[in-house]
This record gives sequence, C-alpha cells and structure tokens, in this order.
Amino acid sequence: MAVLIDIDDAEDPRLSDYRDLRDVQLRKNLEAEHGLFLAEGEKVVRRALETGFPARSFLMAPRWLDGLADVLATSDAPCYVMPESLAEQVTGFHVHRGALASLERRPLPSVESVLAGARTVVVLEDIVDHTNVGAIFRSAAALGVDAVLLAPRCADPLYRRSVKVAMGAVFTVPYARLEDWYDALPQVSAAGFTTVALTLADDAREIEQAVAGLDRVALVLGSEGHGLSPRWEQSADRRAVIPMREGIDSLNVAAATAVACYLTMRR
Amino acid sequence: MAVLIDIDDAEDPRLSDYRDLRDVQLRKNLEAEHGLFLAEGEKVVRRALETGFPARSFLMAPRWLDGLADVLATSDAPCYVMPESLAEQVTGFHVHRGALASLERRPLPSVESVLAGARTVVVLEDIVDHTNVGAIFRSAAALGVDAVLLAPRCADPLYRRSVKVAMGAVFTVPYARLEDWYDALPQVSAAGFTTVALTLADDAREIEQAVAGLDRVALVLGSEGHGLSPRWEQSADRRAVIPMREGIDSLNVAAATAVACYLTMRR
Repeated sequence: MAVLIDIDDAEDPRLSDYRDLRDVQLRKNLEAEHGLFLAEGEKVVRRALETGFPARSFLMAPRWLDGLADVLATSDAPCYVMPESLAEQVTGFHVHRGALASLERRPLPSVESVLAGARTVVVLEDIVDHTNVGAIFRSAAALGVDAVLLAPRCADPLYRRSVKVAMGAVFTVPYARLEDWYDALPQVSAAGFTTVALTLADDAREIEQAVAGLDRVALVLGSEGHGLSPRWEQSADRRAVIPMREGIDSLNVAAATAVACYLTMRR
Repeated sequence: MAVLIDIDDAEDPRLSDYRDLRDVQLRKNLEAEHGLFLAEGEKVVRRALETGFPARSFLMAPRWLDGLADVLATSDAPCYVMPESLAEQVTGFHVHRGALASLERRPLPSVESVLAGARTVVVLEDIVDHTNVGAIFRSAAALGVDAVLLAPRCADPLYRRSVKVAMGAVFTVPYARLEDWYDALPQVSAAGFTTVALTLADDAREIEQAVAGLDRVALVLGSEGHGLSPRWEQSADRRAVIPMREGIDSLNVAAATAVACYLTMRR
C-alpha cells in the first residue's frame, strides 16, 4: 500500500520528479538522468501500473485518492497529497486530471525482438512533436498494428504529452529505437518486411495498391514539416501516397498514419 | 498598403484584439462581441487574406514584415510592429510563428446553401476541443470533403487554436451551424443525404459496407468523451463502425474522421 504523505511546501525536495513540467528541455534532461517518466490522469496512471511500470511516487489532490485506491494498494511508492493550488506551483501548470505518477522506465527491447512475430509495423523517422507521436501510438493500438520503430531523432513516446495523447497506448504497443539512421530501412527489409514509405514522390503508388497482397509490412512515415529524408524515401522498398485533393497541403502525419494503418491492416 | 505603426507600450489600447490569447472564455466573449477572429503564423495569415477575410489589423515583430510584404500591400489595416518580448506581454504567450492578424468574421452561410451541390459532408455533434475541430477540417480539406455542418454546441472553427491546427482549412471548407439539435439529422436526410453515424452501437456495420454505393453521404461524428448522443445515433439513417482491436479505446475523433472520410470519398 502506498504511503500517503501530506505536503504543504511546494519546495519540498521529495517533489523533484514533478518540477516545471512545461519546460521541455529541462524535463528531457531530468527524465533521462533519472530514468523516469510521468503519467497524468487517473486512467493513464492506472494503465501504467497495470502494464507493469514500477511507480517511484504519486502526486495528487485528496479528491483523487478514492478513485485510485485500488492502484495505490498495489504499490509501495510514496503518494504525495496536496491541494491542487500547491500541485500547480510545483508542476507549473494546472493539473486538469488531478493525479500524477512518476514511473520507472524499462530498458527498451531490441529492434530484432520487436520485429520478431510482428506482421505490421510502423516506422517513424523524425517526428519531433510529442502530440503527433502520442496520436500515432493511439491509432496504431486501436487499429491493431504490432509494433513501432523510432528513428534516432524521433520524439520520446514516454514524454508526458505523448503519454497523455496516446491514452496510455505507449505502454501496450511494443516499440524500439533504431540506432543506425542511414541503414534503418534496409535493416527492416532484411528482417523480412516490405518497407512502404508514405511520400509525395513521383513514383508513389496509391497506398491500397502498394500494400495489396503483401505479407509483412513496415509503413514508413516522416516528419511533420518536410516528410521523409531523401535517404529513407529512396531506401524504402516501395513508395505510396494517400490520394488527396489538388492544391491542398498534406494530411497531418497523425491523420495520414491512421488512414495508412487502416488500409494496411486490411490488405 | 497597411500602415506600419511602431508600438512600445503593451497597454496600448489599439492592441485590444490581441489580449490574453490563452484565456479561452475571455477570448470567446471578445471575439463574438466584435465579430473578429485571429490568425497566427505567416502561412495562415496569408491564407486568411487570400480567401477574402478583411483584416482589422496585424501584429508582428519587424523580422516578419518582409515575408508578408505582399500581403500587407493588399490591405489598408494598421500593422502594429513590436519586439517579440512586447508581443508576448500583450498576448500572454510566446508567439512562435511571429505574425498575427485580427480578421473580420463573415456571416455563416445557411445549412441549405452549404448542402446544395455537396456530395460528401461531415456533421459534427459536440466536438468541444478546438484542436480536434481544426484537425477534422484539415483532413476534410485534404481528402476532398465538400462541407462541414456543426451542431449548436460544437466548438468554433475560427478560434485561434482551430485555425492553426487546420492550417487554414477552416477558410476553404464551407461550413454552417445547425440551429436545431434535435432534428438536425432528419433535416440533413430531407436534403437528400444518407446520414451515416460513426458509433459503437450493436447494429453498426463496417464503415466500408455502410457507405458502399451511396450517392450523397453525411458522415456524423460525436464528442471526444461520450460519442454521439442517443438522439443523433438513433436518428441517423445508418450506423457504422471502424473495426478496431478488441479491448482498445476508440480512435481519437480526428483520426476516426480521417479514416471515415477517406473510405467515404472512395465509396
């Protein structure tokens, strides 16, 4: 059972995991150094614990204790209890959903182990927006994608904003970090997948045709701004496009992923 | 040619259109009273002007003047020029993309005029999140949807956040506000559309089957939290589902809209 600890001082050193949540750079450093990540909201906190991430601590206002009592019963971590106004001072923002947890990261699995047994995976190049990463994981989970691979510069799925937007899908969809950017797609092809790059390239086929009849497929998506790098575009086995109205900017990458995953799952 | 006016005082009364942009309730009231809305970022400001919205004024740091010179040349509105730090004091947030414009709203067209000539439309019930509304407009534009109808409580597509996420698609996709919530869908049916509600109801068919062979289609989507109201679910002509993996929460409404629009456009 988590030990409840009443807190009345925003400067209490035990709260260091929860400081300045709106400062992305500071959080990145802090979370990497201490191997932690944050979950926000009753539902997401619950899912993090249920999927086996050990809690370092909890932070919440008194009114959230009852709803999470069963979760707190399973953990020995301290639970810092404080008024919402104090929580806002610590975190630097209004904690809409009341409950926070600081959790321990686990070592990521290898690319090979994530690909073994998978039939449909998504490969993300440099998606730097945490909201988009979270949205992609949510869609991937809902539509039944088996795993996600991330390029070295792709944003962290366990950053608070990604976790929140994904509604916890980052806990359930296996993912791994690619170490070698240049040969990442040949590596996936060598593992038995046909890599299909979403692109506006001239030789791109309509996505439904591009994936028709394929066995193992890796859908490859690039950054919000510029799309895939030339290297990834050219080192993919196939190039595919989602047909769009003339003269319109492309779909948002999260929307494009949802459409592409749906069609690929039904190939 | 817009008149450039150097500003050195954050309290200058001429800046009232740009105050406290992070205060949603205050902005809603201010924008409704004055019939204005804001566009943010060079690209979105440009699109707003190009699609015919008259500017009330512009606000930007000096370094944005060159890039928007051609746009400013077409307007007689004042352009308030100030350092980014002063812009931040006025608006209450860091203006990442540098340029803002305050624009005049136009009267919305009627539901009848928006439906006339349309073959595929999206009908949104109570989508209250501005990001989702913006994302839906962006996908609708990219995939070729003809128009959007909004329930009385659906969030404003011209709210700053919606405009930004939509990348200006709210300027180009025609939309109208439904006045009668209760009989909204029968009204759309009476105009010659088959209304297809996205839902998890027991009698929902897979979306591809539900829209196959239909002429005029109105895709109906509900709120982020609870989905469609029972009234809308039952008063739609058909109920449809996007097949998902067992035990997973639904797709985000913007992702679901992208998938449903894609499939409906290719019916």
